[in-house]
Amino acid sequence: MRPQEIIAKKRDGKALSEVEIGIFVDGVVTGAWTDYQITALVMAMFLKGMTRSEQSSITMAMLHSGMVMDLADIDMPKGDKHSTGGVGDKTSLVIAPVLAACGVAVPMISGRGLGHTGGTLDKLEAIPGYNVRIGFASIKRIIKQCGLALAGQTKQIAPADRKIYALRDATATVPYIPLIVASIMSKKLAEGLDALVLDVKTGTGAFIQKLADSKVLAQELCATGNAAGVKTEALVTDMSEPLGKYVGNALETYECIKILRNESGSVMSATVELSTELTANLLVQCGVHRSAAMARKQIAQVLSDGSALEHFKRNIELQNGDASICDKPERLLTPGLHRTEIKANAAGYISDVDSLAVGEAVCAIGGGRVKASDVVDHAVGFECVSKVGDKVKRGDVVGVLFTRNAEQAASVSEKLKIAYKITSEPPKRSKLVRAKV
Amino acid sequence: MRPQEIIAKKRDGKALSEVEIGIFVDGVVTGAWTDYQITALVMAMFLKGMTRSEQSSITMAMLHSGMVMDLADIDMPKGDKHSTGGVGDKTSLVIAPVLAACGVAVPMISGRGLGHTGGTLDKLEAIPGYNVRIGFASIKRIIKQCGLALAGQTKQIAPADRKIYALRDATATVPYIPLIVASIMSKKLAEGLDALVLDVKTGTGAFIQKLADSKVLAQELCATGNAAGVKTEALVTDMSEPLGKYVGNALETYECIKILRNESGSVMSATVELSTELTANLLVQCGVHRSAAMARKQIAQVLSDGSALEHFKRNIELQNGDASICDKPERLLTPGLHRTEIKANAAGYISDVDSLAVGEAVCAIGGGRVKASDVVDHAVGFECVSKVGDKVKRGDVVGVLFTRNAEQAASVSEKLKIAYKITSEPPKRSKLVRAKV
Repeated sequence: MRPQEIIAKKRDGKALSEVEIGIFVDGVVTGAWTDYQITALVMAMFLKGMTRSEQSSITMAMLHSGMVMDLADIDMPKGDKHSTGGVGDKTSLVIAPVLAACGVAVPMISGRGLGHTGGTLDKLEAIPGYNVRIGFASIKRIIKQCGLALAGQTKQIAPADRKIYALRDATATVPYIPLIVASIMSKKLAEGLDALVLDVKTGTGAFIQKLADSKVLAQELCATGNAAGVKTEALVTDMSEPLGKYVGNALETYECIKILRNESGSVMSATVELSTELTANLLVQCGVHRSAAMARKQIAQVLSDGSALEHFKRNIELQNGDASICDKPERLLTPGLHRTEIKANAAGYISDVDSLAVGEAVCAIGGGRVKASDVVDHAVGFECVSKVGDKVKRGDVVGVLFTRNAEQAASVSEKLKIAYKITSEPPKRSKLVRAKV
Repeated sequence: MRPQEIIAKKRDGKALSEVEIGIFVDGVVTGAWTDYQITALVMAMFLKGMTRSEQSSITMAMLHSGMVMDLADIDMPKGDKHSTGGVGDKTSLVIAPVLAACGVAVPMISGRGLGHTGGTLDKLEAIPGYNVRIGFASIKRIIKQCGLALAGQTKQIAPADRKIYALRDATATVPYIPLIVASIMSKKLAEGLDALVLDVKTGTGAFIQKLADSKVLAQELCATGNAAGVKTEALVTDMSEPLGKYVGNALETYECIKILRNESGSVMSATVELSTELTANLLVQCGVHRSAAMARKQIAQVLSDGSALEHFKRNIELQNGDASICDKPERLLTPGLHRTEIKANAAGYISDVDSLAVGEAVCAIGGGRVKASDVVDHAVGFECVSKVGDKVKRGDVVGVLFTRNAEQAASVSEKLKIAYKITSEPPKRSKLVRAKV
């Protein structure tokens, strides 16, 4: 079947068969389809729609364009968490060691930050020496030794997704749920999991802002994961204010180590809560615990007794990182950064901290990427001193910006100031977990 | 404005401004837009629609991606005819010399055949030595000497169209009226015309089969031409049976020379009639005549007195062709071709000759192109002995196929046999000119 015939079928609003989608995805990898034929079909998919069956077919075809990890000889349940991306969203660095400490093997393949959202790989690379460029063989070896491995996407994993995603990014076809599902799940299913928990963000700092849309994405992700034989559940969680205390790579890693050291303060509580909920869900799915309550108990235990930290420490060593940051997390912080205080412009209650604005500000000072080839400055970032619901006086410090110099600070401080909304009445606080799918 | 923003706007169903369309077309020519961005936008245009204003904007932008001929120093009205393509559709070779003989300058830029439809350039190249690869300067010089020049598209003319059309062909986005209009008119407007007559085909052998759709295309072509300041009218004409006597390049050129020699038989009458109607329309538009009746009179005159032939003969000389074919048209015919008679399988009246089937058969024996890079065999073709409405006996020869060998003939003769439908009652004959726009 020629590309034109398949494109014409979708152009005319017809559903493509598994075979036709297979021809397309094979063509992407082999080059039998040109880039311009790929984008024409993708635009037609975007505008004419895809059925759930097409969504599953493209996910599986993209998955099998690469390799699937075989962890059969590791005698533990295999689980992972995936987040659709947010601001200050650092739970992976807590969840992976906690899961390992609870007896779940975690072959976590993550991405890098882009735009206002951060990425796990960048946070890991804030640890001196930490190597995320490892393949299936190393991932397996490291999991056998410490229960978790944290790696970046390689050419082994869903190469068709890599190519299609880059083309979608250049042709305004990213925000379409069936293709988002295929992109996420084709990579996650390559991990050879028993169970997966998804953190689908909703709110201003999320990729998808509306709760209803986030729920649909969560449902579709779960349907595709379960159809592929991986127990999949999703929490739809709030991303209207930044998660926890810090935004910025080294600062976020610092926050996670503090949590794993059981030294988290109240500003970090949301990070602990969300990590706990996602982990508990997965522990139940994996059959480690029969109830979320029992799972939460063990999670609290492995955080307080240092065993989660111990797993992470061992992992850092195995991935060539400087594990001494687990004992001295302050070593993650760069001394001598320029410090700018953001102050409340009125007395009252903080009703909103615009996470999109905070994410964009951190990106603008070098903490993130405008385009994929940008180099990230791990040191810079933002500290959320006050959170939504806090009572403040005019002039109180509500946030602190850490930059390399005063010029960088000046370029974003106004944006940060107006990110904070203050009202005279206490705001209605939205729950962290908005829905469960 | 980045390509993604313009693509997203059309993706969301919004009309693009003249400036945005200009950025797109500039990007096509400069390479600022990649091929895959071009096809994504084109698919979105196809599926989300374009307004008439967008259609005009893209036509003008594509036109001005190249050069426009300046024929101001030729003191004659400038006119041309364009056909959307058919089977046996050879009127250009009659119309251009007739117009020239009537005092209209004809800077005709034509295309090559593709699929079941023929192209003027291929018919011209059936004349030994005839050179269609000439640029604006030569076209102008030749028009000054004989009133007409017949040339192929060069890189001077609408380069954006050349690129976009090739991409549309590979991405199932050809059959969309606003883009068809832009493709046709951006090239025709480059001729620097005063008036243009369009022959929009309808019926089985046409690019667009339905009369209503053909009328819409005709209206849109006229609207865009007139908006650009060129008097434009269209005839919607029947392409349900092949036009005139022959299909195949040299055979069609032979038919035209016979007509210009005033030696046309009754089987060629439709070619004469259609050429006359299109030419008369243009002569009125150009102000050469006040009525179509007066124009028809002069057309008959220049055909019978040999002055149209004389103009073509002079043109052939100026374009390096062998002008002796005007005196001895039989020299166009290749001796020794394999001759296969197609016979009536019943007695009665011919009710239909499937022009698509005839066009495809001639293409299949080498007389046309499946893909643009194919080489055409000018000699082969088909003679329509009987036409729709003719009364035949079982076994009468209704058509003759001319091939290089028996194998070629065998591969298509069955298809040609069933192209002829015979009924016991005389069919209702459709008019040659179905509508005027």
